[in-house]
Amino acid sequence: MEDLYPSRYSSEPEIVKRKDPVIHTDRSKDHESPLSTEQLDSYEQNGFLQIENFFSEQEVSEMQKAIFELQNSNQDSESDMIIREPEGNEIRSIFKVHDSDEYFKKVANDQRILDIVNHLLGSDVYIHQSRINYKPGFTGKEFDWHSDFETWHVEDGMPRMRAVSLSIALSDNYTFNGPLMLVPGSQNYYVKCVGETPEENYKESLKRQKLGVPDQESMRWLADQGGISVPTGKAGAITLFESNTMHGSNGNITPYPRNNMFMVYNSVENQLVEPFSGNKARPDFIAERNPKLKVNK
Amino acid sequence: MEDLYPSRYSSEPEIVKRKDPVIHTDRSKDHESPLSTEQLDSYEQNGFLQIENFFSEQEVSEMQKAIFELQNSNQDSESDMIIREPEGNEIRSIFKVHDSDEYFKKVANDQRILDIVNHLLGSDVYIHQSRINYKPGFTGKEFDWHSDFETWHVEDGMPRMRAVSLSIALSDNYTFNGPLMLVPGSQNYYVKCVGETPEENYKESLKRQKLGVPDQESMRWLADQGGISVPTGKAGAITLFESNTMHGSNGNITPYPRNNMFMVYNSVENQLVEPFSGNKARPDFIAERNPKLKVNK
Repeated sequence: MEDLYPSRYSSEPEIVKRKDPVIHTDRSKDHESPLSTEQLDSYEQNGFLQIENFFSEQEVSEMQKAIFELQNSNQDSESDMIIREPEGNEIRSIFKVHDSDEYFKKVANDQRILDIVNHLLGSDVYIHQSRINYKPGFTGKEFDWHSDFETWHVEDGMPRMRAVSLSIALSDNYTFNGPLMLVPGSQNYYVKCVGETPEENYKESLKRQKLGVPDQESMRWLADQGGISVPTGKAGAITLFESNTMHGSNGNITPYPRNNMFMVYNSVENQLVEPFSGNKARPDFIAERNPKLKVNK
Repeated sequence: MEDLYPSRYSSEPEIVKRKDPVIHTDRSKDHESPLSTEQLDSYEQNGFLQIENFFSEQEVSEMQKAIFELQNSNQDSESDMIIREPEGNEIRSIFKVHDSDEYFKKVANDQRILDIVNHLLGSDVYIHQSRINYKPGFTGKEFDWHSDFETWHVEDGMPRMRAVSLSIALSDNYTFNGPLMLVPGSQNYYVKCVGETPEENYKESLKRQKLGVPDQESMRWLADQGGISVPTGKAGAITLFESNTMHGSNGNITPYPRNNMFMVYNSVENQLVEPFSGNKARPDFIAERNPKLKVNK
């Protein structure tokens, strides 16, 4: 398959234009979407959309309870799906929760979410990746800027920009506790990153990403164009963001944790091929290669 | 001299009440202050005060030019007064600029500042410490939570809480580029930190503070009481904060630097004695022991 978005093959970075729509259902069909025209405009322009109070207080407290039960029950696990802090043993992420856990499977298949995601991607969808992220107070580390798509394309073989990430806030997000930062408009540009991808890069990159990080000049250019947005709000809000929207987060020295559930929905018409890096594919828990879960539109 | 604020002598932290006023001129004399009653109330309640547009645009661009000239001219300096990034050679701070540089001496003695500071401290003042801080974009590291007074007391022998810090913003401060975070009301509590202070601790602590950092439980208590404030605004704003106000800052992965000039004014009636740790005093460029500069009220 032709590589429409080559990256990590040169020592010089380059910025090219996106070759895919941001919303994959024709805008003449806005009225069929559960999102309003304003919400669709905002997602299309900015590459992300936050919806406050998406989940009720009761749903939020159920989910909050469930993530800590899951963390506790995995404390001694040696599974690859459990990612711990670079320095220390604290659990930072648990992967594939939509498959391994009945409760989170139900959350991932929430019809309200699927209706939105089906519309944005213009097709049936499946879950490419899911995880719970635990960002503790005091010691939460930063995540460097990155486009998820760049990694999914190079390391996993995702052909096109036709996936959407969804983060469910399970803590209140303030400006100061290391919230998600996004660069509005960055979904329209693809930053070809420098360097080559070594085999099994994911073991390192899930703890701290070094490859697939845009160079400083490109990053400055994107931020000067679009600014930096920091959606904050109560637990229960969701943030939808396009696969190529540049994002990252600062560390967190405050006492307040920042936990979320994170799921990536991919179009069934955008299923993975061999990684464009030419390397071996990453494990299934990071990038679903044989989707069982298909949801009818 | 009696140690009114002992710290770092126990393995158990403790929180005690402040024994000094926050504003050292009687509040019946508010009308003599260049600050309004609202501003004085705010400083007394919160332990800090931000004033937007304190310096004019022209003054700001002069200062911005001057800090980079100073940084360039010190690039190869081996002076102890130049502090570099923990990993790398970039200059992070330059100390004692009010003494070593004619231009910054003028800034430090700006009559508008002295009028404010004299009133807050209720006496003549001198400069206990001054420095330029360079917090670059992309790689700016976090500063852990601390009360400046705790360190100045234990390591420098500052007897009482009768000093005020002043930060001049020389970059625009956003919520996302690692701005100063302060805990309102924390000036009223003294957190006795755990541990002992080794000799020459300052060589490490100026890069990354490990001692004199409050324990997590005390920090959570303070933040739950007062919240966390993040003054943002344009370059040219000043932030005044009381010596014991708990503060820190997150790292900065954004492209936007955060530079400032930082000065500490101490009351002439609060001059340093021997360090309460019993250790050797730190160098003069960190803690002025023989003030020449006295300014008449």
